[in-house]
Amino acid sequence: MATLADIGVAAAINIITALILLLLFAILRIQPFNDRVYFPKWYLKGLRSSPLVNPGAFVSKIVNLDFRSYIRFLNWMPAALKMPESELIDHAGFDSAVYLRIYLIGLKIFVPVALLSWSILVPINWTSNGLQLAKLHDVKSSNIDKLSISNVERGSDRFWAHLMMEYAFTFWTCYVLLKEYENIASMRLAFLQSEERRADEFTVLVRNIPPDSHELVSDNVEQFFMVNHPDHYLMNQVVYDANNLAGLVAEKKKMQNWFDYYHLKYTREKEQRPRVKLGFLGLWGKKVDAMDHFTAEIDKLNDQILEERNRVKKDEKGMMPAAFVLFKTRWGAAVCAQTQQTKNPTAWLTEWAPEAREVYWPNLAIPYVSLTVRRLVMHVSFFFLTFFFIIPIAFVQSLASIEGIKKSAPFLNPLVEKKFIKSVIQGFLPGIFLKLFLLFLPTILMIMSKFEGFVSISSLERRAAFRYYLFNLVNVFLGSIITGSAFEQLNSFLKQSADQIPRTVGVAIPIKATFFITYIMVDGWAGVAGEILRLKAFIIFHLKNLFLVKTEKDREEAMDPGQIDFYVNEPRIQLYFLLGLVYAPVTPVLLPFIIFFFGFAYLIFRHQIINVYNQKYESAAAYWPDVHGRIISALIISQLLLIGLMSTKGKAQSTPFLVVLPILTFCFHRFCKDRYESVFVINPLQEAMIKDSMERAREPNLNLKRFLKNAYIHPVFKDKEYEDDLHEELIEDSDDENCVVVPTKHQSQLHQKNISQRNTVMSSNANNVPSQPVSSNRLDSGTVAEPPSHNQSLDV
Amino acid sequence: MATLADIGVAAAINIITALILLLLFAILRIQPFNDRVYFPKWYLKGLRSSPLVNPGAFVSKIVNLDFRSYIRFLNWMPAALKMPESELIDHAGFDSAVYLRIYLIGLKIFVPVALLSWSILVPINWTSNGLQLAKLHDVKSSNIDKLSISNVERGSDRFWAHLMMEYAFTFWTCYVLLKEYENIASMRLAFLQSEERRADEFTVLVRNIPPDSHELVSDNVEQFFMVNHPDHYLMNQVVYDANNLAGLVAEKKKMQNWFDYYHLKYTREKEQRPRVKLGFLGLWGKKVDAMDHFTAEIDKLNDQILEERNRVKKDEKGMMPAAFVLFKTRWGAAVCAQTQQTKNPTAWLTEWAPEAREVYWPNLAIPYVSLTVRRLVMHVSFFFLTFFFIIPIAFVQSLASIEGIKKSAPFLNPLVEKKFIKSVIQGFLPGIFLKLFLLFLPTILMIMSKFEGFVSISSLERRAAFRYYLFNLVNVFLGSIITGSAFEQLNSFLKQSADQIPRTVGVAIPIKATFFITYIMVDGWAGVAGEILRLKAFIIFHLKNLFLVKTEKDREEAMDPGQIDFYVNEPRIQLYFLLGLVYAPVTPVLLPFIIFFFGFAYLIFRHQIINVYNQKYESAAAYWPDVHGRIISALIISQLLLIGLMSTKGKAQSTPFLVVLPILTFCFHRFCKDRYESVFVINPLQEAMIKDSMERAREPNLNLKRFLKNAYIHPVFKDKEYEDDLHEELIEDSDDENCVVVPTKHQSQLHQKNISQRNTVMSSNANNVPSQPVSSNRLDSGTVAEPPSHNQSLDV
Repeated sequence: MATLADIGVAAAINIITALILLLLFAILRIQPFNDRVYFPKWYLKGLRSSPLVNPGAFVSKIVNLDFRSYIRFLNWMPAALKMPESELIDHAGFDSAVYLRIYLIGLKIFVPVALLSWSILVPINWTSNGLQLAKLHDVKSSNIDKLSISNVERGSDRFWAHLMMEYAFTFWTCYVLLKEYENIASMRLAFLQSEERRADEFTVLVRNIPPDSHELVSDNVEQFFMVNHPDHYLMNQVVYDANNLAGLVAEKKKMQNWFDYYHLKYTREKEQRPRVKLGFLGLWGKKVDAMDHFTAEIDKLNDQILEERNRVKKDEKGMMPAAFVLFKTRWGAAVCAQTQQTKNPTAWLTEWAPEAREVYWPNLAIPYVSLTVRRLVMHVSFFFLTFFFIIPIAFVQSLASIEGIKKSAPFLNPLVEKKFIKSVIQGFLPGIFLKLFLLFLPTILMIMSKFEGFVSISSLERRAAFRYYLFNLVNVFLGSIITGSAFEQLNSFLKQSADQIPRTVGVAIPIKATFFITYIMVDGWAGVAGEILRLKAFIIFHLKNLFLVKTEKDREEAMDPGQIDFYVNEPRIQLYFLLGLVYAPVTPVLLPFIIFFFGFAYLIFRHQIINVYNQKYESAAAYWPDVHGRIISALIISQLLLIGLMSTKGKAQSTPFLVVLPILTFCFHRFCKDRYESVFVINPLQEAMIKDSMERAREPNLNLKRFLKNAYIHPVFKDKEYEDDLHEELIEDSDDENCVVVPTKHQSQLHQKNISQRNTVMSSNANNVPSQPVSSNRLDSGTVAEPPSHNQSLDV
Repeated sequence: MATLADIGVAAAINIITALILLLLFAILRIQPFNDRVYFPKWYLKGLRSSPLVNPGAFVSKIVNLDFRSYIRFLNWMPAALKMPESELIDHAGFDSAVYLRIYLIGLKIFVPVALLSWSILVPINWTSNGLQLAKLHDVKSSNIDKLSISNVERGSDRFWAHLMMEYAFTFWTCYVLLKEYENIASMRLAFLQSEERRADEFTVLVRNIPPDSHELVSDNVEQFFMVNHPDHYLMNQVVYDANNLAGLVAEKKKMQNWFDYYHLKYTREKEQRPRVKLGFLGLWGKKVDAMDHFTAEIDKLNDQILEERNRVKKDEKGMMPAAFVLFKTRWGAAVCAQTQQTKNPTAWLTEWAPEAREVYWPNLAIPYVSLTVRRLVMHVSFFFLTFFFIIPIAFVQSLASIEGIKKSAPFLNPLVEKKFIKSVIQGFLPGIFLKLFLLFLPTILMIMSKFEGFVSISSLERRAAFRYYLFNLVNVFLGSIITGSAFEQLNSFLKQSADQIPRTVGVAIPIKATFFITYIMVDGWAGVAGEILRLKAFIIFHLKNLFLVKTEKDREEAMDPGQIDFYVNEPRIQLYFLLGLVYAPVTPVLLPFIIFFFGFAYLIFRHQIINVYNQKYESAAAYWPDVHGRIISALIISQLLLIGLMSTKGKAQSTPFLVVLPILTFCFHRFCKDRYESVFVINPLQEAMIKDSMERAREPNLNLKRFLKNAYIHPVFKDKEYEDDLHEELIEDSDDENCVVVPTKHQSQLHQKNISQRNTVMSSNANNVPSQPVSSNRLDSGTVAEPPSHNQSLDV
């Protein structure tokens, strides 16, 4: 067991590491040639242009020679805190702003908890002398343990202080969570209400459209919704199976890029037309004129793309049994998304469409039964992954051992026999496979979610995050407390009685405090400081810049701003909540370390969100119920473990007193779920109606059809060249006068005062309706469905 | 352990008991004076008139003298089977018809299972000689055990037959359940679609209307739905707090009844006006003229009722924050019921209104938070009721012992000292309290459900049934297998490991087979035969007829047809499913007894449903998902117990093979739930639209408002005398020309062929609309909201 001094040394090492990283960052970020690594967000926003184009000496374009700026090397910290939250939401999106609040919650929960436990529990623990009594029995202990619950005598009445404190911690945590849920729910509503007109408000995703041998999917959809939502249906966009097409388009893009590169080369040296070899990687083969070659390639691909597009549209198999149905009003869409359409609840499944950017297209066509099977398969796989992941890794490790290599690849024998390589293999390789596995685990979990069939990226991430959290809980938290593989734990848990499990774990909790303190410092302090340096992005950008960047577009792409991968980061934060709540009544010494983590990470991530990350989609914090639920589950785990610990401390009679807590906490969770969760799932009718009415008052002549027509088209169809004609083709069938929204006079109904009503008059003869001139209030849906454009000019 | 001969004797006794009961029934039912006891359903339908009024000798009015009818004493049996199911639905309602199918499912599942297990498992068990080996070790056994799994040697490969059979049983059970779910779902849909226009199709129950200091609840509701469902809202009926009023109306009814009685008396003996004493129970006090007295009382009550009614309507506290909102179309109501209205999911809660007859009025005003608390309180209470119910009973039993009585009521000492009474108290009283408790248990559970705040009687019954099933599972099934109180079991389960519990229970299963066979015969055979005799109703009817019946109305009321109390009967049937599934692979001898139960009970209940019971409401088999779920849970329990049994039989290696079964069964359950459950909860939009369109085509000028206006009024307001003026008052505010549905010409839209569309034109100036004459196609909602009237004339 580590002493206070040991921990001090570890803390010093980690703080120094963190400081070095921060210093490095401070130096690197003010070098102009790193500008695109550390401020990509501003480039994407178009608010920052490359310092390399500014007039001045060549050197100052690359290295910052202004020494005053080196002195103020920490001035990014106050700057990161300056931007107010509302501006942050505008700047970086609602998801990111709410993500930061997770760290804030950590501070809100743990600062008062730490104050309370240091002022009450630490003195109580310190003045006890359970350890001295234990020393008589030759049990070793350190002075950290003198501050922890271990120092209280067995069966002492002092434990009541810990029990009361657990009540206080629980109530405080729940209070903070409740306030936060309330806050974020109303923020989300305000965000959705105040925002610009969004296509997804009008859109419902329909899946499992039953096959009809007589009609195309689109006609089938049109007919169904014309009948069942006659007053609100506008049009539909069937989902095409465009995977082939997407491949062709990507290929064409590559060719175009090469063409641009050679064209650039040619414009610089007019005397010689560039030539290229046709063989593998351009290393051998016939030499041809590069520009001609790529022009021909592009033309060929263009033909293929056209052909494929026609095939997709005409071939019935090209249409998936899913469609985006667009409505005339938000109210109509909200109704359709929330209701069951037919007596068969597995056909014509409707749901509120995800934002166009976050649709995961390949999953749209999975039939219902398949979804159930996939879900089951993934549950079982995840179970095995969690409890048996060590088995394949052990197998690979055995292959990677000296003997394994000798057996499977005898020709490497002479190499392996060398002493240096031998020691590398023995000392390094086995560990690296485990690290690699853990590194790729979130990706593996993401692939599993994709296989499971979720249709929006946010739901994919949420599921992956949930599984990553479970994996961490079992293998990092429980795995560190009870040594032995997860499978052995599972086996021993199955063999233990239900009331024995919390005891087994609980009794080990105080012993592992120092281990977790070290863990927090390494993973939480140094790890977070490493985040700001963006080492990976830094290296890749400069490597690409040196070797690969051929055109301006390439440079744009080399500048990878990255984003907060919710499914990677959030489960890691959750581990800190769990540790904090579990150790608050047991070893309060741990709390300051956690508080420092939350504060530091908040600062770092706020800076990164402002300057670096660029979220690919906006889910308006749809993940919040998950975050909330996981903190609640950490709270319940901490309560159960305290029950277990108490019953091993000769305080088994406190169990009924403590058992009330998890029950109350669970009820609190149910209450929050019932009260707030729907805000994150459903568009309530009243809100939809208000926004509809306001829009109608503001823009009575809005041509909604034009606004929506491009909204939910597979991204490959968005290729600028084909866009217009394609859309016209897609739209032409349903483009008839009948559907034009004709606004009529307001009508004051009984008790109705302020809210305007609109009548949808469908005349029996469309020709009789005086077709009103449609105002040109056109909003290109491109702004909704694409990331902000960034077409700045750049000289190389 | 009982031998085959013991079981034979028990079977003989029970069969003879059952036969005697049937014989008694056969004799009693053909006596004219019992006609109202055994055929009340037909009286209520108005299809049978009292045989007492037929001409003939006085004796033959009371006793059946036609001896031929005594010979055909079992002819009710084929008669009970004759009525086809569709006719049964018309005659007795959908709920009853589907209830009978539960017995049929029992037959469908267990007849093939029994055939299979008798042809495969019984020979295998019989030809083994595990018991002979055990006999060497001096273990006693009977010849019943020779047919059971106990006879197979420990660790024998013959167990694979049992395992394979468990697979076969599981698949067969699931297949039957799936087919049945499918069947009943489509039957329900057909029933709802084909039936007459029902008020509940157009109605949504809104609860938790947020208080508004400026407006009455009804105005608030009107305004809210006018704004948020402008095209579909018709009107609303606020729920009044009419509990006081209900008391006054009941009082008046009693007085009216007395008046009728004395009036009848007077008409028979004109010479003397009847007189009545005013004191307690009419036994002493001042004598006054009876008719005058009661006329005065009725007048007084009339005044009070009027006053109270005005108070309720004017007092704001008289209006509960709940309302029935009526829509112009089924589509509109279906939309409103399925959607969330505001951003606060706990306000303006909407749900599909229950049938008016089954509304449980007192619960309509419970606020949301209170509901959550009540639910929690009831969960906890039920937990204690299940596991600790024995404690208060033991306490009462101790009071009821000789010593207890001596202590608490010393004045009874001389009585208690007598030998006969002493032995009665000692031998009888303790048992009777337990029996009484078990008798009143369903009622207690029903009261708990009412406290929990469900608003429809069917949901009250479903919750009570669920709890009764759990209670039976723990205290009857597990309690019989593992002796000891439920609390002791709970304690030992908590102390046992998760894999030990199925073993503990599983190993006791074969031993208890004979006990359960006896249980089935007593409870299932003789008990069901007792049902047909209606002893309680028989005695009460004749007692009332002798002493209490004063008027015709009284006689009508004395004839209590009763109904199938779902929450009492269904959980009992479920116990048989559980026993059958658990014992099918273990002791197949039990199956014929269960099959006989299902067949016999089917016959008896079919007869009773046709001739006796009168359901008070129609939920269109809303309980089916519960029935299905409980059979599934019985299946899973049987699988787990088999795993436990196998691991004690030296076949622990079969666990992975068997563990697949509960997982698959659970998945099957999920699939069924997703696929069919919504049919029992939701009115899909397509179905609503179809019925709307058909109705519009059939009756274009329907005045829906008139049809709906009385539908959801508190039953006390239905007092005929006040009905008309009250309704007019209730309706007058919202009775304006604007809301008249004006049918317009059809309009053919793109792709629309067969289904008519209706446009709701709300003119901006109501006066400009030529108000069309409303056809008098009026359906009195009384037929919907009240049980069939039964005003037949009867002479006493």
